[in-house]
Amino acid sequence: MHEQDGVQSPDSLSPNVAKIIKANRKKTISVDDLVSGILSGNITALSRAITLIESTNPSHTKKANEIITKCLPYSNTSIRIGITGVPGVGKSTFIEAFGIHLTSLQKKVAVLAVDPSSSLSQGSILGDKTRMEDLVKNENAFIRPSPSGNSLGGVARKTRETIILCEAAGFDTIVIETVGVGQSETAVHSMVDFFLLLKLAGAGDELQGIKRGIIEMADAIVINKADGENLKAAKLAKVEFNRALHLYPAKYSEWSPKVSLCSALKREGIAEVWNMIEDYIKTTSENKYFDTNRNNQNKFWLLQTIEDRLKSDFYNASKIKMELPQQIKLVEVGKTTPFAAAEYLLSL
Amino acid sequence: MHEQDGVQSPDSLSPNVAKIIKANRKKTISVDDLVSGILSGNITALSRAITLIESTNPSHTKKANEIITKCLPYSNTSIRIGITGVPGVGKSTFIEAFGIHLTSLQKKVAVLAVDPSSSLSQGSILGDKTRMEDLVKNENAFIRPSPSGNSLGGVARKTRETIILCEAAGFDTIVIETVGVGQSETAVHSMVDFFLLLKLAGAGDELQGIKRGIIEMADAIVINKADGENLKAAKLAKVEFNRALHLYPAKYSEWSPKVSLCSALKREGIAEVWNMIEDYIKTTSENKYFDTNRNNQNKFWLLQTIEDRLKSDFYNASKIKMELPQQIKLVEVGKTTPFAAAEYLLSL
Repeated sequence: MHEQDGVQSPDSLSPNVAKIIKANRKKTISVDDLVSGILSGNITALSRAITLIESTNPSHTKKANEIITKCLPYSNTSIRIGITGVPGVGKSTFIEAFGIHLTSLQKKVAVLAVDPSSSLSQGSILGDKTRMEDLVKNENAFIRPSPSGNSLGGVARKTRETIILCEAAGFDTIVIETVGVGQSETAVHSMVDFFLLLKLAGAGDELQGIKRGIIEMADAIVINKADGENLKAAKLAKVEFNRALHLYPAKYSEWSPKVSLCSALKREGIAEVWNMIEDYIKTTSENKYFDTNRNNQNKFWLLQTIEDRLKSDFYNASKIKMELPQQIKLVEVGKTTPFAAAEYLLSL
Repeated sequence: MHEQDGVQSPDSLSPNVAKIIKANRKKTISVDDLVSGILSGNITALSRAITLIESTNPSHTKKANEIITKCLPYSNTSIRIGITGVPGVGKSTFIEAFGIHLTSLQKKVAVLAVDPSSSLSQGSILGDKTRMEDLVKNENAFIRPSPSGNSLGGVARKTRETIILCEAAGFDTIVIETVGVGQSETAVHSMVDFFLLLKLAGAGDELQGIKRGIIEMADAIVINKADGENLKAAKLAKVEFNRALHLYPAKYSEWSPKVSLCSALKREGIAEVWNMIEDYIKTTSENKYFDTNRNNQNKFWLLQTIEDRLKSDFYNASKIKMELPQQIKLVEVGKTTPFAAAEYLLSL
């Protein structure tokens, strides 16, 4: 398992890799070298390219875009799984157990994260590699912390583009972790095939989950820490969540969300989660929802990107920066209406 | 009570009104005549001006904007109350009973509606005047159906502008009705001081209300049809809603939402609702939330109007109309990413 560039030895001594190392030393790796590295499954090349995606340097962005375009024909090949849950629910432990199970099935697993707050909190998720000690050592796993950034849109975009490169590098299962707060769950839900909500028995945050639409988004609710003295409460919670799920209308996917129990720590109930996901893939492949959903997600991100840019271009224009506070003031004192003020600002 | 222009006799024979009638005959009423009519409380002038607001004819819009600007200094004077509830809950009966109670307190009541679907459904709310038979006849009440329009933004804007004119015409209590479906509740919540949710006992749609954030927005939940055999169930529902409300964090308004019972048909419990609203006004005037909230609402509508226009200008541009479907297709077949497609479209 490799997480960052420049610290590991190369995976093989193929001419490609040799070239990369050489270029690396000179700090000038060409786009084509990185792409052929990625396509041959080289982790150093993949990490390097992701670093370009995450960079704010325009020349890096240009390079990153070229790499993405060249990797695109080799992407769209994995199963993308979103995992959310409040802090303390055991996400890292679960993802480690889940990842190890997947690699035991000869799968290649990439674990990414979406956490726009991590630039402030110094990486609240996936930042601490030691939390996934066993998975980190596994050569069929790749763990990458959440890119930093102030806007969810920016972080989500970087993660979406990273998915493309991971798929091109041969990862067939992408796990995307997010924290159970804010709007990041909606963003992750819009980039995955299967959305898994991790819960604890008796946490009492059901209302919160219903209110914020998280339960509605979930394809599975997995109750973690279902072991020892917790087991009875967990079984009860399973009945309750099943009842809650029945209150929702049927999903377009025609998939009825399932509730299951697990103990990530004891690595129990993990295989069942994967079997459930396989069932989901079967159901949604047969009824064509799987592809429809990916197309809708692409359309969503296309429009979302446009709309974010329209707004940021408008509000960052110097005229608007100067005049907006004044117009807000005029509306406040009743000298103009919000609509007239908007017209005025739009006419600048 | 007058609802549309041109069918009623004038309220008085003041020189202003005579002028309006004369102009009306010639079909050319000046902005100044309409404004002075509105400010003298003339309903025909008010109705005429609202018709200009609702028109899609650009010359009407120009006139409407001038009228709004001239009325603005006389607005911001009423209490604005939003009322929502699913079809069948008895909204019309409640608003009639409530409006009659208010007029008995010497108040002048305007009843407006936000229902973007009404252009399709031929006016599902307030369209049928006969549903408020008694209020319609009351000379201190003014009922105006929801303006037609395809976009919620457009309908909401027209209603916001109509509020200004109603306030300038001396209406001190504005009731804004909306249907309990779609996003129209959020829009109405963003234009009123007090938001009232009308419910029935045992309707079993609590989850729906929590999910869609309606209960969270409510300043009061009023359980209607609390009479006869329903009374016991209504009392039970009151306890349950009180419990549900306690699960929410305290509001910025420092107002704890209340639950009360009423029978709109028997006109029982109506005075209590108004007393509750008076309490709310007292609380939020003292802690300054009342004005803060109106300022925030103005800011919200200002930004919302800008963002709606940025989007509609972009998507309606002929280049984008031509190229967008093509880019969506290219994303679908994996020839480009949503982000690259967005960049391309933004560069046109």
